[in-house]
Amino acid sequence: MNFDTQVERDLALLARGTEEIIDPADLRKKLLRFYETGRRLVVKEGFDPSAPDIHLGHTVTLRKLRQFQDLGHEVVFLIGDFTGRIGDPTGKKETRRQLTEEEVRANAATYAEQVFKILDPAKTRVAFNSSWLGRLTLEEVIGIAAKFTVARMLEREDFAKRLRDGKPIGLHEFLYPLLQGYDSVALQADVELGGTDQRFNLLVGRDLQREFGQEPQVIITMPLLEGTDGVEKMSKSLGNYIGINEPPFAMFGKVMSIPDTLIEKYFVLLTDVPLEEIQRKKEAYERGALHPKLWKEELAFELVRMYHGESAARKALEDFERAFAQGVCPESAQELCIARQELSEGKLWIMKLLERTGVFQSKSEARRCLEQGGVYLNGERINVHQDVVLQDGDVLRVGKKFFFRIRLV
Amino acid sequence: MNFDTQVERDLALLARGTEEIIDPADLRKKLLRFYETGRRLVVKEGFDPSAPDIHLGHTVTLRKLRQFQDLGHEVVFLIGDFTGRIGDPTGKKETRRQLTEEEVRANAATYAEQVFKILDPAKTRVAFNSSWLGRLTLEEVIGIAAKFTVARMLEREDFAKRLRDGKPIGLHEFLYPLLQGYDSVALQADVELGGTDQRFNLLVGRDLQREFGQEPQVIITMPLLEGTDGVEKMSKSLGNYIGINEPPFAMFGKVMSIPDTLIEKYFVLLTDVPLEEIQRKKEAYERGALHPKLWKEELAFELVRMYHGESAARKALEDFERAFAQGVCPESAQELCIARQELSEGKLWIMKLLERTGVFQSKSEARRCLEQGGVYLNGERINVHQDVVLQDGDVLRVGKKFFFRIRLV
Repeated sequence: MNFDTQVERDLALLARGTEEIIDPADLRKKLLRFYETGRRLVVKEGFDPSAPDIHLGHTVTLRKLRQFQDLGHEVVFLIGDFTGRIGDPTGKKETRRQLTEEEVRANAATYAEQVFKILDPAKTRVAFNSSWLGRLTLEEVIGIAAKFTVARMLEREDFAKRLRDGKPIGLHEFLYPLLQGYDSVALQADVELGGTDQRFNLLVGRDLQREFGQEPQVIITMPLLEGTDGVEKMSKSLGNYIGINEPPFAMFGKVMSIPDTLIEKYFVLLTDVPLEEIQRKKEAYERGALHPKLWKEELAFELVRMYHGESAARKALEDFERAFAQGVCPESAQELCIARQELSEGKLWIMKLLERTGVFQSKSEARRCLEQGGVYLNGERINVHQDVVLQDGDVLRVGKKFFFRIRLV
Repeated sequence: MNFDTQVERDLALLARGTEEIIDPADLRKKLLRFYETGRRLVVKEGFDPSAPDIHLGHTVTLRKLRQFQDLGHEVVFLIGDFTGRIGDPTGKKETRRQLTEEEVRANAATYAEQVFKILDPAKTRVAFNSSWLGRLTLEEVIGIAAKFTVARMLEREDFAKRLRDGKPIGLHEFLYPLLQGYDSVALQADVELGGTDQRFNLLVGRDLQREFGQEPQVIITMPLLEGTDGVEKMSKSLGNYIGINEPPFAMFGKVMSIPDTLIEKYFVLLTDVPLEEIQRKKEAYERGALHPKLWKEELAFELVRMYHGESAARKALEDFERAFAQGVCPESAQELCIARQELSEGKLWIMKLLERTGVFQSKSEARRCLEQGGVYLNGERINVHQDVVLQDGDVLRVGKKFFFRIRLV
């Protein structure tokens, strides 16, 4: 196999699921040089220093980083602790929350533990941008700022819109893209990854490297992943996320709740199932030869398998099938602890019970589920507002997917 | 005399010639506190670190600073060496000219020597803003930037215009007003002075002090002084300036060349002649009872007296009168040295001679003066292009005001 063939094969792998590569010719050149010289590419992605639970949305770019590692390259997992340490200076002094250095290190450890389910620790370097940004002098900052114009910053759609709408843009917000770009200079990054919402910032890094006499980084943007609601970007705060640490049955159930229109996208971005197979299944689905529930079960199975292993995936599938078919409580149901003193003559108001499940985003959502017949206690449908008698070991079912075993404590 | 009366008297003095005071109530409060507590006000003005010849245009604000000193206050003569040391980072590396620390110190000395003709050295503190700006961390810069919005910066007319016209504004240019404003914070300035073109920057200082929990400075803007052409702001590069170090006769002659419409403004901004007297003369001039030449001679006399003393002023007036009336060479004519080897058979091309006087901005201007009969050698008009015989001691007259005694060396 000569280098050209290898490079073409790598490019095809790396292109999977991407929104945009700027530009492919540069990437080809860099990959070729790797084979010729053995010098690994430095592939960078920046992360917030707040400690999140990593969910499938995060894995879209993390998995792309892993692909680079599998091809032999080095990943820099860059923790943007500098701005995190500053906090948002526009906040009032009282509410301004600066992370301490210890907190940042602790969060980094939490991060690492999770991302190393996807990244190869041996080919990952964890870096903190405070190491170089904290040392910049005002003179250097001015030198960096001078390389960009105000008009260029206003090309960023959200800035332009806020200015048009008369909404404030703090001057410091113009500095952040520069600092993120300077990270690429400091790291001499060859490639930077991000979501499509990061496109502008990634390009700033590319330009800034050029200004500093470096070979500009290739930027790769990945599509944003919609969450289980099928509409909004997956995020913890919207409650539409699927965490990679969620227990097998919960993960399986959540995947089964995504709209059918997202199955293909999830397969492409979140799994290694070959594109040809995905395409084949998609065509079968479109001509009615593959039921979406079955296709989605394959997706849920694959995702649980990736994060919990084959046997856990098989069990989650069986549990789900049984629950779906028979409406019975699967063995893997969650425990729902209720204090005995909360009960009044052994009873609890049904809405209070539903609220405790954590399944609903709002009371009106819980009410709707109840009134539409989605709530069962020990297999018996409860569809009016009432007090219900609770005993230890009772099984509460909410909708098709959520089962809880009541524990009176 | 009670404090209120003193404060009102001070306010009247300080208001002379100002374009704007923001705001007078704050200034009154600060002046009153001075009398009550004895704490002197800190009055700041910033200057470029390049070494200029101080001209009458500079004295408009310098004289206002002196008024504050005469009332007991402290002046900070602030040399903006920080940005001078950086240079303009947008320039190409080759042309980027950074002043060294030694050059800045040398220029400061040149400055001091000149400004202390106006300021009282005992009540002047010379400061360099690199002392605090050079030590700012990026974190602090972000904190300062966060206090301003992009929209606010675009209120500055020149920024708004350049953005509208598609002309570039470097991002660092947004930082400079902040840094200038931060100077006021670092100095805890009570008052800042500047030309009307500095209004925006002075206000930034006022706002920034408020953000840093300081009492905001009063800003005083002074009108820009037109030069001898009566149109453009006085500046060395335009050649329309009157330097405070110019010899008496040259200064006198230059003042006599300003348009009549500027006499009043020069009196108000550049002299201590009481406003009532200026007003009286102006009315006499307007009803034709005072010839503008006489009024202007009073102005020229007063200005030469201020910078060279009474007897030099009297001599300059006499010389001017004689030259004006008789067209003869005044004793105070400048020497114009010509090397003998430049002559060819004792002669020099007239245009070459005119060029050496330094009076003209361009060759075409010199040609026009020659052809219109403004050039005399030893009282004889030269109005055609020719070689002229030059001898040591010859008198060259150019226009009405410029006399040169030829020195062959």
